[in-house]
Amino acid sequence: MEVITFGETMVLFNPDSTGPLRYVHSFSKSIGGAESNVAIALSRLGHEAGWFSRLGNDEFGRYIKSVIRGEGVDISRVVEDREKSTGLLFKERFAHVDPNIYYYRKNSATSNLSVEDLDYEYIKKAKILHITGITLALSKSARETVYKAIEVAKEGNVLISFDPNIRLKLWRIEEARQVLLDVAKKVDIIFPGISEGELLLGIDDPNEIAKKFLEMGCKIVAVKLGKEGCYVASNNEEQFVKGYVVEKFEDTVGAGDGYAAGFLSGVLKKSSLKECAQLANGVGAMATLVRGDMEGFPTISQVMQFMGKEKHIDR
Amino acid sequence: MEVITFGETMVLFNPDSTGPLRYVHSFSKSIGGAESNVAIALSRLGHEAGWFSRLGNDEFGRYIKSVIRGEGVDISRVVEDREKSTGLLFKERFAHVDPNIYYYRKNSATSNLSVEDLDYEYIKKAKILHITGITLALSKSARETVYKAIEVAKEGNVLISFDPNIRLKLWRIEEARQVLLDVAKKVDIIFPGISEGELLLGIDDPNEIAKKFLEMGCKIVAVKLGKEGCYVASNNEEQFVKGYVVEKFEDTVGAGDGYAAGFLSGVLKKSSLKECAQLANGVGAMATLVRGDMEGFPTISQVMQFMGKEKHIDR
Amino acid sequence: MEVITFGETMVLFNPDSTGPLRYVHSFSKSIGGAESNVAIALSRLGHEAGWFSRLGNDEFGRYIKSVIRGEGVDISRVVEDREKSTGLLFKERFAHVDPNIYYYRKNSATSNLSVEDLDYEYIKKAKILHITGITLALSKSARETVYKAIEVAKEGNVLISFDPNIRLKLWRIEEARQVLLDVAKKVDIIFPGISEGELLLGIDDPNEIAKKFLEMGCKIVAVKLGKEGCYVASNNEEQFVKGYVVEKFEDTVGAGDGYAAGFLSGVLKKSSLKECAQLANGVGAMATLVRGDMEGFPTISQVMQFMGKEKHIDR
Amino acid sequence: MEVITFGETMVLFNPDSTGPLRYVHSFSKSIGGAESNVAIALSRLGHEAGWFSRLGNDEFGRYIKSVIRGEGVDISRVVEDREKSTGLLFKERFAHVDPNIYYYRKNSATSNLSVEDLDYEYIKKAKILHITGITLALSKSARETVYKAIEVAKEGNVLISFDPNIRLKLWRIEEARQVLLDVAKKVDIIFPGISEGELLLGIDDPNEIAKKFLEMGCKIVAVKLGKEGCYVASNNEEQFVKGYVVEKFEDTVGAGDGYAAGFLSGVLKKSSLKECAQLANGVGAMATLVRGDMEGFPTISQVMQFMGKEKHIDR
Amino acid sequence: MEVITFGETMVLFNPDSTGPLRYVHSFSKSIGGAESNVAIALSRLGHEAGWFSRLGNDEFGRYIKSVIRGEGVDISRVVEDREKSTGLLFKERFAHVDPNIYYYRKNSATSNLSVEDLDYEYIKKAKILHITGITLALSKSARETVYKAIEVAKEGNVLISFDPNIRLKLWRIEEARQVLLDVAKKVDIIFPGISEGELLLGIDDPNEIAKKFLEMGCKIVAVKLGKEGCYVASNNEEQFVKGYVVEKFEDTVGAGDGYAAGFLSGVLKKSSLKECAQLANGVGAMATLVRGDMEGFPTISQVMQFMGKEKHIDR
Amino acid sequence: MEVITFGETMVLFNPDSTGPLRYVHSFSKSIGGAESNVAIALSRLGHEAGWFSRLGNDEFGRYIKSVIRGEGVDISRVVEDREKSTGLLFKERFAHVDPNIYYYRKNSATSNLSVEDLDYEYIKKAKILHITGITLALSKSARETVYKAIEVAKEGNVLISFDPNIRLKLWRIEEARQVLLDVAKKVDIIFPGISEGELLLGIDDPNEIAKKFLEMGCKIVAVKLGKEGCYVASNNEEQFVKGYVVEKFEDTVGAGDGYAAGFLSGVLKKSSLKECAQLANGVGAMATLVRGDMEGFPTISQVMQFMGKEKHIDR
Repeated sequence: MEVITFGETMVLFNPDSTGPLRYVHSFSKSIGGAESNVAIALSRLGHEAGWFSRLGNDEFGRYIKSVIRGEGVDISRVVEDREKSTGLLFKERFAHVDPNIYYYRKNSATSNLSVEDLDYEYIKKAKILHITGITLALSKSARETVYKAIEVAKEGNVLISFDPNIRLKLWRIEEARQVLLDVAKKVDIIFPGISEGELLLGIDDPNEIAKKFLEMGCKIVAVKLGKEGCYVASNNEEQFVKGYVVEKFEDTVGAGDGYAAGFLSGVLKKSSLKECAQLANGVGAMATLVRGDMEGFPTISQVMQFMGKEKHIDR
Repeated sequence: MEVITFGETMVLFNPDSTGPLRYVHSFSKSIGGAESNVAIALSRLGHEAGWFSRLGNDEFGRYIKSVIRGEGVDISRVVEDREKSTGLLFKERFAHVDPNIYYYRKNSATSNLSVEDLDYEYIKKAKILHITGITLALSKSARETVYKAIEVAKEGNVLISFDPNIRLKLWRIEEARQVLLDVAKKVDIIFPGISEGELLLGIDDPNEIAKKFLEMGCKIVAVKLGKEGCYVASNNEEQFVKGYVVEKFEDTVGAGDGYAAGFLSGVLKKSSLKECAQLANGVGAMATLVRGDMEGFPTISQVMQFMGKEKHIDR
Repeated sequence: MEVITFGETMVLFNPDSTGPLRYVHSFSKSIGGAESNVAIALSRLGHEAGWFSRLGNDEFGRYIKSVIRGEGVDISRVVEDREKSTGLLFKERFAHVDPNIYYYRKNSATSNLSVEDLDYEYIKKAKILHITGITLALSKSARETVYKAIEVAKEGNVLISFDPNIRLKLWRIEEARQVLLDVAKKVDIIFPGISEGELLLGIDDPNEIAKKFLEMGCKIVAVKLGKEGCYVASNNEEQFVKGYVVEKFEDTVGAGDGYAAGFLSGVLKKSSLKECAQLANGVGAMATLVRGDMEGFPTISQVMQFMGKEKHIDR
Repeated sequence: MEVITFGETMVLFNPDSTGPLRYVHSFSKSIGGAESNVAIALSRLGHEAGWFSRLGNDEFGRYIKSVIRGEGVDISRVVEDREKSTGLLFKERFAHVDPNIYYYRKNSATSNLSVEDLDYEYIKKAKILHITGITLALSKSARETVYKAIEVAKEGNVLISFDPNIRLKLWRIEEARQVLLDVAKKVDIIFPGISEGELLLGIDDPNEIAKKFLEMGCKIVAVKLGKEGCYVASNNEEQFVKGYVVEKFEDTVGAGDGYAAGFLSGVLKKSSLKECAQLANGVGAMATLVRGDMEGFPTISQVMQFMGKEKHIDR
Repeated sequence: MEVITFGETMVLFNPDSTGPLRYVHSFSKSIGGAESNVAIALSRLGHEAGWFSRLGNDEFGRYIKSVIRGEGVDISRVVEDREKSTGLLFKERFAHVDPNIYYYRKNSATSNLSVEDLDYEYIKKAKILHITGITLALSKSARETVYKAIEVAKEGNVLISFDPNIRLKLWRIEEARQVLLDVAKKVDIIFPGISEGELLLGIDDPNEIAKKFLEMGCKIVAVKLGKEGCYVASNNEEQFVKGYVVEKFEDTVGAGDGYAAGFLSGVLKKSSLKECAQLANGVGAMATLVRGDMEGFPTISQVMQFMGKEKHIDR
Repeated sequence: MEVITFGETMVLFNPDSTGPLRYVHSFSKSIGGAESNVAIALSRLGHEAGWFSRLGNDEFGRYIKSVIRGEGVDISRVVEDREKSTGLLFKERFAHVDPNIYYYRKNSATSNLSVEDLDYEYIKKAKILHITGITLALSKSARETVYKAIEVAKEGNVLISFDPNIRLKLWRIEEARQVLLDVAKKVDIIFPGISEGELLLGIDDPNEIAKKFLEMGCKIVAVKLGKEGCYVASNNEEQFVKGYVVEKFEDTVGAGDGYAAGFLSGVLKKSSLKECAQLANGVGAMATLVRGDMEGFPTISQVMQFMGKEKHIDR
């Protein structure tokens, strides 16, 4: 595997109409999970990606596995929990904002994720380990698992990539801040957004956010700026990279995960910092063109055409 | 009950796709009725509201009752008509305009509404009686019912609120003008729109419209200006109150009813004229965020957050 | 045209789930009308059929026209009513019985059908005029139209076919009995069911029912016996003809109309009484295999295969 | 209120197709709960019924309230839980059996139900208190609530009705047996099925089951025998009462609750034991005619017609 | 017939959600075909239009016939192919662009279209023959059919109208250019777009494009400029005619066909060049208001209202 | 891999309603293919199965790959065809029979399957190679591929399993008979049905059919008898094995493939002939419980419970 990641993926129920959920008559099933999004996006870009989790021994767990495996992601290390159920989430849509989320993940199978679920050799053979702040918030044992995975990755000289992904429905900001900053010090690549800069560092300037994380020891900081693009920095260089504007879009869910996957794809191909950022911007933008968290991730050829770097050949 | 209202509510069939109805394959069922919209919006804002009507002794009548009762509105005075059917309406949608409406309400159960259907004591105990011009247009007996209700309300010192709601599919403009102006003279609060100012008074200036209705004896005039906001006036004060702009919206159906409900909520809470207008603007704007006539009405806490008057606490 | 018929066709709304209509969330649109069913079934069997009616100048009227015309039936004599709306019907399904029907046809455009809507030459050139008892029940002017059409047909030596089709939601049994028996005396072919024998004649024996109608002057009587088949009689011969049994079926709506169309197809081809009855049984049985009033009518080749009279060639 | 009941009602997600849930694409929302089923069925039969529970402060909780209130059931005593979410259940359908159920109810709001949630006066004013074994299985505090409610009811001379409703997904059989038998001793009317007789008493003979429960102190025992009917016994009389056979049905879910409601309706009307049993059989049978747990419950007039005790008047 | 046209119409499957087709769960059926679009649009505008093709002897062929016949278009010359199947197309939608198309038309029944399928007298009696470049690209025999039809039309002094409609999925640009320019020399009216000007003539200036086609012998050139409007020219006059702007639209598919139909309607009514262009712009714009290739075409009265040339009377 | 198979899998469009396809409004997407069914069923029973094919470089090809890979089947040897499209099939349902099929597979990508697409080593390492008569009928190159695969398997001492699967839409019976009997002589296990016995051998007696194939060199003959069960024979033993009766079922599609998979699972586990047959009957019966070709295949634990060989533990 080139990239390994792990975390909670849930069955996602999308309302068939806008408005408060009590008026919604039917829901369509899909999956949602930041880490599996990254793995799927990487697989679609042509990379070998592995994802694992702890899932319920139920139809919803089997569904998640078949979708992710279907996308070509290695799921051989997924663990089945005999006690707990697979987590769920429901979206609620209004015309003017991103959807509300209702979780049924408290005490889900994934919150049982523990150090025993790690296959050390599997991690050590990867080029990149990608982790997110969501797993850190799930449970004590899940948090320990992340810490252990970082340790194992370091032993194997595996690059560590980190998306803070603050979810205030899962933990309080004080605890989140402390843990996320602690982890940030241990990783090589970090993908903060502006609001995460504010919550974690009290800073909303991309330049300053980048500087802070570089000081903490990160080698690359990619500050996501939404449709504006991103600000990327390493110890050698730093720059603002303009985003791709789309006239209409469905929703922004999954854009951040697409961004991370695009960036890591560039890293794996040893692209320049700017090229990594451009690919990240492209994949992130394309994720917004399709309703659904992961359905919009492009192949490398599709994103190249979208970015105008490859000519579209009408079939 | 704080507010009592009555009128025709129909089963509303929403097309599942845009375009002329002959190409629409399926329709989703909901309900539509200006007065029940006001009652539901008031209930959601935390008030005690009662609504009644004359409905067919059929499944569609039972559906309307269960929806409105489900929203917490008192329907104890609804009358069942053994002869006639519950009215229906079909919407037809195109991308660029508000929907077309096809009615099946001629000779509906509600057009049989008559003075005998009024429970005088019920009305007299309310704080506000809300009526609309639609009921005045339904039939001779329905019109008499409105006049009688006004009389009863006056006996009980109940405040009378009036939305002219001109529907040119139901009566000719000459008749509408005469009746609506006659009723306007008997009410305390009136909610005209600009086009109603033109049709009834031949005036399109909000200031002038307000002045005219005040002269006729209304105590409060709230001229609805769509997304611009509203112009409100009493004998003591008058002002323009800016509306809430939303980036995207579904449709404007129900916005006027939400406006009236928001305003009456302010009146019940003895808010200032400006506060009444702001709440009215807020509820009206939120009604446009959801497809459906009444599904988008907010709770008081939701509208306060929307208006920026209360902080949103992420659950 | 070989066969001409006329009457009310409505837009039919089919519930997407079983149960009382107030719990049904969505409805699919189709059309329903006994006479247009017969015309469509005849067209599918390869005959030239014409149907006319008076429809609203609305999308539902246009829909009905496009469906019937789409099936190859001549609709050139359909009249548009500028005042009234096209009729509607809603079905309500339970697991164990045929659907309940809710009509919105009172005062529909077709109830305005009048003698002026008849094109005498059009009728006189037909081989068969098919009428039903439903049109007789719609309104005074519709009833007069049927009587006039019979008169015109007789002038043109056009064979007259009659399905009593008693609908007790449309008129009282006393009136129905008197009118239907009066019309029965003027027609050549009649298609009573057993329950119609009971209601009209007080007789439930097929043999006796046939005898009575022959005595009244009918030349052919085809008594429908549901899945058992039918009992057919003329002045020369009479016999029971066994029906086609199907293991599973959707519903029996449309079976009677398919029966009539099959029978008339036989008459047009100058088949023997028995062959007419067999074809009638076959088409009637096939109508039950598909949800929908007219979607299940077969081509002549399909019904021949179904009846085992033609070999099925796997395409 | 004539009957008061309480317990857990969940949002129920019905799959739009048969087969393992991972292949199901969309789900329709409804509600499910044994006690609310009984309350709704009683309301439809014309009785005053009250139901309460502890629900999440979320859209799903609001949905449950609007559906039950919409059916005319008093929900004034429902308590809102600020911490926990409303429970969910998913059905999975195969052609040959009753659906599988997947619950998301562990730690749901209703499992927080406690003695403090009881309104003693509300219970004491009722004629019947109906409880089920499900609430006994939810949590320690929920069980205590049932015991307390029984105590309060006895103080008020309220008749106590009990459906054991064994759910082996919620507790182990040993615990269930002990608690349910303990409660059985305190109630007036009990509705065991044959399999419950086996699990609780080790007996599968209706006659013997009835005798046992009478010995424990129950005044009426109604042993449900599915489509066969039921065996009812009091200290004075006992008899088998034949069920109503339906040719086709959707599923048997809700039939037991309909049975109980029909029986209690008889009790409230002071019908004979046999009449209670017949009405119970009728309502139970009608519940199977509609997909959905509670959509099929009839009005008193509908069930009378179904049972052949009232003539059906075609509208 | 006033206008006759022919070509391939396929069954069109519309995805029920945006995104790559592998994630789309269900598809709705409609029809798509440039020539039948023109015929349907003309029929709706009140003209007699005939369309023919070669279709498979299958349900999809029957579906196409019933839709087009249902719209009032004469289909009496449609030929049935016993060997080959009716063509299909699938759309794939993303938020920001017009849909992708997947064809299943290679070797379809229509590619068998041949000179034998032409009814010379039928063509000669028309006022206008409308052809498109798509048929020229289908197969050798289809191309010969177009050439023969042109020849026959010229014999009958029938006006020939031509929409180049370049489809690079069907043939290579070199071949397309040669054939289309050859045909352009034989026609009276041509409807190029700007991109077709570029592909065929290497010119992107409307004025120049028009001049070139006039030089080749066309009598009228109408250069489509999308929402901007069009540039029309004859040997006597030339002008830019502004388009109708719509605030929101569904998609642009069918707009070009609507444009052509509007233009030909003007020609049939002997309107001025400018009036033809305005009507063309109006019909083209209205086609974009509805999802679907032909569902949005207006009646003459609807387009007149849309263009502000007729007052809308609220029914 | 324990079992390797290959052949054509198509995207399957299921109508959302019964009746002729021209009346069906929408279709749901799934996949269909006899060989992939067997591979998926084996994977679900706990075996390692590999499937390959030649698919179009299009969304439908990617969909097929993601579904089959999602089920845990190895698809590493699937070949992508740059020229041709992935095949499609549409079902048409009537109440009383198995569905009609409309194919769009002529000249599909899989018909290009050729000997070059075989990975010899991959095949030689398997325990069983499963082939069907469908692939033999697709094209000359596909047939050669099957012959070559048999040759390679024999070199590797791989057991060869063969389902004749006669599809008279794909070839004429004379050619089918000759080729299928020729292949039958080369295989170890064969799964004929009674109708295939008739078509290939002119025999309809299971015992005789088995004898004939054993004489041709097959080592095991399993004659499928539908719901009756099967007749199995080897050179040592032979017996009738009773099938599992289900009260209701959806359709029989996929039952034969489930049967083959169940049988091969038994062979892999070195079960007795009777046990193989029982497992085959069980899996085949369970396939009929779910609409869809492959959605109903059970896990080993589910089929054991279904067969009554394992106790069902209520979760």
